[in-house]
Amino acid sequence: MTRTVLAADFGGTHLRAAVVDENGRVLARDERPTPTEATAASVTAEIVSLLRSVAPGPGAAPSAVCIATAGLVDADAGRVILAPNIPGFRNLPLTEPVAAALGIPAFIENDASAAALGEFRFGAGRGLRHLLHATLGTGIGGGLVIDRRLYRGAKGLAGEIGHIVIDPSGPRCNCGSRGCLEALVSGVAFAQRARRLLAKGKSPRLAVIAAGREPNGRDLLVAAREGDTAAEAEIRNGGHVLGLGLGSLVNVLNPDAVTLSGGLLGMGEMLLGPMRDALSSLAYGPASGTKVLLSELGDDAGLLGAAAVAFERLEDAGLRS
Amino acid sequence: MTRTVLAADFGGTHLRAAVVDENGRVLARDERPTPTEATAASVTAEIVSLLRSVAPGPGAAPSAVCIATAGLVDADAGRVILAPNIPGFRNLPLTEPVAAALGIPAFIENDASAAALGEFRFGAGRGLRHLLHATLGTGIGGGLVIDRRLYRGAKGLAGEIGHIVIDPSGPRCNCGSRGCLEALVSGVAFAQRARRLLAKGKSPRLAVIAAGREPNGRDLLVAAREGDTAAEAEIRNGGHVLGLGLGSLVNVLNPDAVTLSGGLLGMGEMLLGPMRDALSSLAYGPASGTKVLLSELGDDAGLLGAAAVAFERLEDAGLRS
Repeated sequence: MTRTVLAADFGGTHLRAAVVDENGRVLARDERPTPTEATAASVTAEIVSLLRSVAPGPGAAPSAVCIATAGLVDADAGRVILAPNIPGFRNLPLTEPVAAALGIPAFIENDASAAALGEFRFGAGRGLRHLLHATLGTGIGGGLVIDRRLYRGAKGLAGEIGHIVIDPSGPRCNCGSRGCLEALVSGVAFAQRARRLLAKGKSPRLAVIAAGREPNGRDLLVAAREGDTAAEAEIRNGGHVLGLGLGSLVNVLNPDAVTLSGGLLGMGEMLLGPMRDALSSLAYGPASGTKVLLSELGDDAGLLGAAAVAFERLEDAGLRS
Repeated sequence: MTRTVLAADFGGTHLRAAVVDENGRVLARDERPTPTEATAASVTAEIVSLLRSVAPGPGAAPSAVCIATAGLVDADAGRVILAPNIPGFRNLPLTEPVAAALGIPAFIENDASAAALGEFRFGAGRGLRHLLHATLGTGIGGGLVIDRRLYRGAKGLAGEIGHIVIDPSGPRCNCGSRGCLEALVSGVAFAQRARRLLAKGKSPRLAVIAAGREPNGRDLLVAAREGDTAAEAEIRNGGHVLGLGLGSLVNVLNPDAVTLSGGLLGMGEMLLGPMRDALSSLAYGPASGTKVLLSELGDDAGLLGAAAVAFERLEDAGLRS
């Protein structure tokens, strides 16, 4: 019988859990809305309760559990340092209480780093050696697989690709700096672009679509698809900027491929075409041919990523013992 | 007796060679001007001749030879793909003829990558695990040490940190893109900044210092040190932009430290002060405390880097056999 692990993905809107085998197959799964008014104790209890609801009965015990979560994570210490979108989730020791409750080794990982290892083990990055993964959603995250292993950096912070500066005179980022990739191309950034267009009266379709409320990135896409050229230009410019960011990182890292996941992929070729052009034009020498691959794990990237991290941690423990 | 290697650094102005031991001590050295009108055959002959001139006599034979060179290198294939500053140096198979002539295993490496491993083994990065090294000279190069080993990427191109985009509307870079780090802060970029100041009549001291000829980066520094505020502002802005570039890479890589080498370090705190401020303000969360260390190898970074690569290659061969 193949070994299994418990995996959880603790996102801004949903808390998902699953039993996953070594081939990346989901044997059982469940999800709940992310608790909105949470203390450290209630968050931990909610995670444990959801994990128990998917865990198989005695005799088929998973070998470990891993929780992927948004925000800064000290994976080695098992602590969430800062999860901006989840109230009360700050300097929270998470692995110790989860391990105690479930009686198996527990690990945590940043969700974008987990997604990178998930794509490498089970998805679009199978068989590659060096991988740069970008998660393109409300914010921009990233993860690195180097020499077939998740790369965490000195303090577990590696992969924060949303905070590379692309334009020092660009819009203010949530992190306090100006012109970060995330401030120029992300769900939040496209919503800002839409609001700016509307304020300037430059997008007649957008005014109709938003109909009096604040427009968001999805409205911008709908307007562009209906032929609004100003809306389309914003999305194409976002794709171009994304390509400059990813191309810069290709020049530094020279990965075998760049893999992409997240809701912004719904913008399709309007975003991805200019992204590919900018990336291959910026990437230096033979790196201009670096492949860009779309996620094969979709919404399950975080969940299967958590499982991939659990398996890698178990293998490392096996190697050390 | 300690093991030794032959090392060469093939730069734009000088060709240097040395015998180096496992502690990074230089036991013998020599140098010549880089040949200006060179064919593949004459370059190879010149390198072999210089290496022979430093090689010890029979009975104390070095175990391997490594040549560090500017430009794009396919280290695994032993080929220089492109060395823009050295005419005739293009798609040149280098390790095979050198190994045949000297009778020991021969390797090549990009000089900035070699410098990174040199600082890790023998210089400012000793004892660290993950290192980002930047060479700040006529151009901007870089190298990565990850998990205590030189990281080359998928095709040996990793570390091209001069070609991350910092400002898409910035000046044109030699690579064809706009606003690369190298186009904003490098020897070439500071010379451009000096020419622009002069053309605009904004720097009275610079006009005196350059005295009718084209001003360069050194003139800009002299003017700034003599109190020319426009010249100083250019250098401080360059430092700020450098900090944004290095801070971006710290967010992606989370290294234990950033090490710096190259002629621009001669600009001192006028460059490095704004660089440190921008880096630590941009770097995310606990990464804002990432150390910036100045090279301990100075002009020998490429040469000792080549030696470090030779020792790492020998160790790898030992592990595999």
